[in-house]
Amino acid sequence: MSRKILIINTGGTLSAVMKKNGLIPGLSIHDMQKELKMVSGDTDIEIEDFCSVDSANIFPEDWCALAQKISDCRNDYDGIVVIHGTDTLAYTSSMLSFMLRNINIPVVITGSQLSITNPVADAMENCRCAIHMAASQIPGIFVAFNRKVILGCRASKVRSLSFDAFESINYPNIATISSLGMKIETAAVPERTGIFKLANTYSDKVCMIKMFPGIHRSFIESIAEQGYKGLYIEAYGIGGMPFLKHDFIGALDKVIQNGMTVVVGTQCRYEGTKMDVYETGKRAMAIGALEARDMTGEAALTKLMWILGMTEDIKEIRDFYSINMAGEMSKI
Amino acid sequence: MSRKILIINTGGTLSAVMKKNGLIPGLSIHDMQKELKMVSGDTDIEIEDFCSVDSANIFPEDWCALAQKISDCRNDYDGIVVIHGTDTLAYTSSMLSFMLRNINIPVVITGSQLSITNPVADAMENCRCAIHMAASQIPGIFVAFNRKVILGCRASKVRSLSFDAFESINYPNIATISSLGMKIETAAVPERTGIFKLANTYSDKVCMIKMFPGIHRSFIESIAEQGYKGLYIEAYGIGGMPFLKHDFIGALDKVIQNGMTVVVGTQCRYEGTKMDVYETGKRAMAIGALEARDMTGEAALTKLMWILGMTEDIKEIRDFYSINMAGEMSKI
Repeated sequence: MSRKILIINTGGTLSAVMKKNGLIPGLSIHDMQKELKMVSGDTDIEIEDFCSVDSANIFPEDWCALAQKISDCRNDYDGIVVIHGTDTLAYTSSMLSFMLRNINIPVVITGSQLSITNPVADAMENCRCAIHMAASQIPGIFVAFNRKVILGCRASKVRSLSFDAFESINYPNIATISSLGMKIETAAVPERTGIFKLANTYSDKVCMIKMFPGIHRSFIESIAEQGYKGLYIEAYGIGGMPFLKHDFIGALDKVIQNGMTVVVGTQCRYEGTKMDVYETGKRAMAIGALEARDMTGEAALTKLMWILGMTEDIKEIRDFYSINMAGEMSKI
Repeated sequence: MSRKILIINTGGTLSAVMKKNGLIPGLSIHDMQKELKMVSGDTDIEIEDFCSVDSANIFPEDWCALAQKISDCRNDYDGIVVIHGTDTLAYTSSMLSFMLRNINIPVVITGSQLSITNPVADAMENCRCAIHMAASQIPGIFVAFNRKVILGCRASKVRSLSFDAFESINYPNIATISSLGMKIETAAVPERTGIFKLANTYSDKVCMIKMFPGIHRSFIESIAEQGYKGLYIEAYGIGGMPFLKHDFIGALDKVIQNGMTVVVGTQCRYEGTKMDVYETGKRAMAIGALEARDMTGEAALTKLMWILGMTEDIKEIRDFYSINMAGEMSKI
């Protein structure tokens, strides 16, 4: 029996057309119908427009609506493909991993570096891979790009121009396509850990900053004054932050005492934090900062938004954040 | 005749010792004398302590003093090695590339992922590579790490735990060490373009932010209100930023009109910005944002600090920023 796949279009480069102001998403899913049919193999595809934006314009409220849409459709299809701009794709795939955790079908997000109208584009190859994964009956949130399938909460855009734009960070690929077909690493697919229940809330009081030499303590204080409840910091190395002349950790101590949740990650692309090694990390842990460990920045940030959307109880926040929710965090 | 090399110690993991509060820099250069002699080959080394800090505590004022020190010594030695913590090493090597441009000797920054007291550490190998490069008579600012030499303004720390912590971003390695010895890619070494003149000023009114879905316009407005004169934004992909419902570019327009210099880079590790492709990038360029192109974040930020330390003239800032000062930016 052929699988029934829903393809939802949100825009991005894949659907881009050249306009006076530069490339912008312009094709509707129906303009792309012929191409999508061509790569759908023996699946039975249905197609639908959700929005048509450059993904720089995707915001948390869109994740909320998209998660609702996917949740509503989950029992009518064997799998769902989401066409999305590459710029914020990894943020979306991370947040959907949380909002849709334990979903019963594959949800595969894809996009491309060139428009489907371009004869040398990667668009059709990426859709082919996404549709094939959506038909795999392996439930979860995934990213399909350049003949690889990546766990949604482990994806990150690492190349701004190449077709090989995404990497699976600190985690194996879920699948790769070669002349042997699609090879799925079943051991890497996280098991479902409970029943599905849509959880599409979030807090819009979360901010992200990246540490740099010369950062002022007052920058942190101003973030607290703006009413943010959560802060994800891309610190140095395995979690380093200044604590001598410019006592950044002292400033963090104050905002944490005033109820802000602070998560410390790293600006190194690979391998994550390990805050129990150096004095600087131990100081940050002592004042109650949470650790992103080997999560991507995209997962660490969206997880914080998601958890702060569910509870304001500091103990619960700390507890929830430490749980591996969707494969985003490795065991210590 | 054997080369005369000065080794300056600033601290970091290489010199770390275990204390009650975790690992902290503790060895003085004299505690490490025996080990440094052992890897100095036929060079004649002198050693000196500059400071002894976890490099998370290195700030722009330290770059200023370190550049002064190196400038003062430049005619007394054939080369200089700087021992530095890895956390902010790439920021330091980037800023020194600007402050010390056209210097007449090799200045090689190194560090390690394990303390020199650890029997399996990378510390001595890295010092060996750094001293060898410092004796090469190839002038410039370099990073030596894991048997590679990287141009100082192209280095970035990409792995938080591995010995192979640094990569040369969007640029070839300057040298690699193998069983054939040290092979220097002379074509990759930027030529000196003028006389040396110490330029160790900077502005402390520069801020960096990383774009994320959900960022509020008010976050930008608050940065302007705090009196910052320069802002480096790690945008998406080839330079994407929101401009629809949440009109971030509109907010930037205002702060640029009020005299702030805004540079747009990318959070993708490789390949840089190209803002003349999509509507979003074209809009940012139209309001007067500058483009980081293929510079690393470390170089793009420190270059902005450096230039704003020299001039407040908007035209000059724009002009200076577009010049390839030390090999940090490729030709278009």
